[in-house]
Amino acid sequence: MSERTQKLYQLANELHKLYKGKMITLPKVPVTEQMDFAIWYTPGVAGPCLLIKENPDLSFELTWRWNTIAVITDGTRVLGLGNIGPEAGYPVMEGKALLFKYLGGVDAVPLPIRVKTQEEFVFVAKAVEPAFGGINLEDIESPKCFYLLDTLRKELQIPVWHDDQQGTATATLAGLINALKLVGKKLDQAKIALIGAGAANICIAKILIKAGAKPGNLILVDSKGILHPEREDMKKLKTENPWKYELAQITNEERVKGGIPEAMKGADVVIAMSRPGPGVIKKEWVTQMNKDAIVFACANPVPEIWPWEAKEAGAKIVATGRSDFPNQINNSLAFPCVFRGALDVRAKTITDEMLIAAAQELAKYAEEKGIHEEYIIPKMEEWDVYPRVAAAVAVKAVEQGVARRTTTYQEERKTAQEIIEETRKMMETLFGAGFIRKYLLELKKQYLG
Amino acid sequence: MSERTQKLYQLANELHKLYKGKMITLPKVPVTEQMDFAIWYTPGVAGPCLLIKENPDLSFELTWRWNTIAVITDGTRVLGLGNIGPEAGYPVMEGKALLFKYLGGVDAVPLPIRVKTQEEFVFVAKAVEPAFGGINLEDIESPKCFYLLDTLRKELQIPVWHDDQQGTATATLAGLINALKLVGKKLDQAKIALIGAGAANICIAKILIKAGAKPGNLILVDSKGILHPEREDMKKLKTENPWKYELAQITNEERVKGGIPEAMKGADVVIAMSRPGPGVIKKEWVTQMNKDAIVFACANPVPEIWPWEAKEAGAKIVATGRSDFPNQINNSLAFPCVFRGALDVRAKTITDEMLIAAAQELAKYAEEKGIHEEYIIPKMEEWDVYPRVAAAVAVKAVEQGVARRTTTYQEERKTAQEIIEETRKMMETLFGAGFIRKYLLELKKQYLG
Repeated sequence: MSERTQKLYQLANELHKLYKGKMITLPKVPVTEQMDFAIWYTPGVAGPCLLIKENPDLSFELTWRWNTIAVITDGTRVLGLGNIGPEAGYPVMEGKALLFKYLGGVDAVPLPIRVKTQEEFVFVAKAVEPAFGGINLEDIESPKCFYLLDTLRKELQIPVWHDDQQGTATATLAGLINALKLVGKKLDQAKIALIGAGAANICIAKILIKAGAKPGNLILVDSKGILHPEREDMKKLKTENPWKYELAQITNEERVKGGIPEAMKGADVVIAMSRPGPGVIKKEWVTQMNKDAIVFACANPVPEIWPWEAKEAGAKIVATGRSDFPNQINNSLAFPCVFRGALDVRAKTITDEMLIAAAQELAKYAEEKGIHEEYIIPKMEEWDVYPRVAAAVAVKAVEQGVARRTTTYQEERKTAQEIIEETRKMMETLFGAGFIRKYLLELKKQYLG
Repeated sequence: MSERTQKLYQLANELHKLYKGKMITLPKVPVTEQMDFAIWYTPGVAGPCLLIKENPDLSFELTWRWNTIAVITDGTRVLGLGNIGPEAGYPVMEGKALLFKYLGGVDAVPLPIRVKTQEEFVFVAKAVEPAFGGINLEDIESPKCFYLLDTLRKELQIPVWHDDQQGTATATLAGLINALKLVGKKLDQAKIALIGAGAANICIAKILIKAGAKPGNLILVDSKGILHPEREDMKKLKTENPWKYELAQITNEERVKGGIPEAMKGADVVIAMSRPGPGVIKKEWVTQMNKDAIVFACANPVPEIWPWEAKEAGAKIVATGRSDFPNQINNSLAFPCVFRGALDVRAKTITDEMLIAAAQELAKYAEEKGIHEEYIIPKMEEWDVYPRVAAAVAVKAVEQGVARRTTTYQEERKTAQEIIEETRKMMETLFGAGFIRKYLLELKKQYLG
């Protein structure tokens, strides 16, 4: 662990302790006299209860449900720390809740749960469905995460999202759309090597295909090498990881065998979502790629290959998962505003098409600003992109008939912007009035200089 | 339904719709630059995760868990509306969350769940245990609620509270302590008739016994009449409602048979938690009670007997569940500060002794202010009582060895007061800045005059 990372952990430890967590709940209604409890609570509250009894969907209009999601984990794959359990995953879930609120105006409740099997996980998620307008799955081991996402998307009437799959896929597709544009290539002709076949790349492969890539042009590589239908573990995969198995059947039409170098040879694009580098991808392998190669090396904290190495080896465009390099493939561009848009139309699900619409809107935003090799995707602080993505998602939900409410692009863009801005302004007000304390400012300098 | 109630429902409907629910989540930490996400989220957040991995109890120190409870219902007995389902119960749960925050500074998350059996309910509660510092059960049908409370108290390492049982018992005991004092009687000698044998009175009976009442001096009456060991439904009760069965075995030592009038005859106290009156308890039955009779008639919205009728019939002290009469037996005096105290010492449970300590502190507060026939229990707006009750509860938890932290009465009183006051001040600040909108003020006049 680098010295800086160590200091960052210490700082985070101290700040989490000083603030005692990161979130609170707060009433958004006034209480001016005791009589007001008779409206917000018994006996008056029986009114809204009776309305919802007649039409359960009114729970989205008369409670905070419309804007509230659960951030659920079983703690089986927290960050890069492995299966550390629900309690230990809590700070991540609460951090995600913070991002949801700060970036998307979404009220999110961290919900680390203790379950033994994927069936138990599904059971609990279904049981808590009435409490939430959506569910964000987080930090769940693969292949369990595929089963959970598939099953819950099918069985619940609220959006279910696994950020490690869909969030990453959305941001990746957004960046790829513009990268391909810059090098004058087309998605439906591009040869794409996917390094790593976990939550992110399995979903990315599926979404790329849905967005127009030819399945045969994709090559997936997992820890055992290139996926192909004759690989000796196919039978085992079929039962243990049918999602990977299925991709093995339809990708890699040239039946390339081997490892990462063989997969990358002649590829137009490499998307690495594997393990921290450097050195997972070697310079010489990049050299073997097609002209104007596109390299997404997204492992954290260290990309599979350093951006400058990839460039030196001939890559035209390089993206990573890090904010200190250009072209950050960042889930935070997706999940807050995808949910913003989905919640605002009371969507029953987030379809792949809604996800693709979000990616396209992200790409379009960057394109309008002027894309170049070091700017293929918006930056996190380009605040005006969030309401646009929310609007694109909401409109697609309406178009596909999965929304409980209708809206237009312009209307939702305005709504989303107002909601997101309000959170920031509230925080500023509370910060100014001393309710949000300044430990952060005081300690950051001390630890990080 | 009275015209006023009807108007109150309409007003509540409109306000719930305008505000879109009653609660929000909000960060309590600053976000001043993108770098801060590296502390609150990845990579820095791995620091606190690793600490909790080593010691799961640190989840109470490094996340909002220490101050966050779930308000859980299955929607099987919502207010007086019966089994209307989890979605329809949502406005009550969110209202309760508001009361928890406003009165006790407790972050509460409404969690209406869809489950079919009591075993499923237990399963879900156990699964979500890692997410919360406590659980408030609400609006659950009897006798299921007894099973749930018993089982969850046994199996969880966080406080579990069923407000319809324990909240009501705490407030009732508080009022009764002072009422007996005023008439110069002792709890261990008082003859007490309990009208209604649902969640409230079953718990009240158990707590009265724990607080010193003689079991044989209690007489419980349910919809079939007075409970006694020879009643013909005993065998059925033994399997279907062992809680009631058990009380039937140890109460009513004189083997009185009959109904409410027979139970009340010669009683010093009647505690009615049954069904809306008036006329459930008749004046002539009060006349048959012992001298200086104490009548608690707590059905809502209309007490089992009007207070003036009880007084005319000779009752010395009368209490109801209503805020517009003297001596309101009000759960809100208990649950916010019981949890405040329990959470502040990271209690693993709320014991009966902690509950009794809360009742005694409530009684003591009123006594110090000067009790009389129309003031046996603090009023909800006597804000300074809450931190005192929290302190009494916390100290008892420490004393009984069920707390993860230690404290003193004075220390916890100060802590509780600061936490509770902060919520109020935050709300004032947000109200003043226009973030909490004024629909309530505008519409209240219009509907209620």
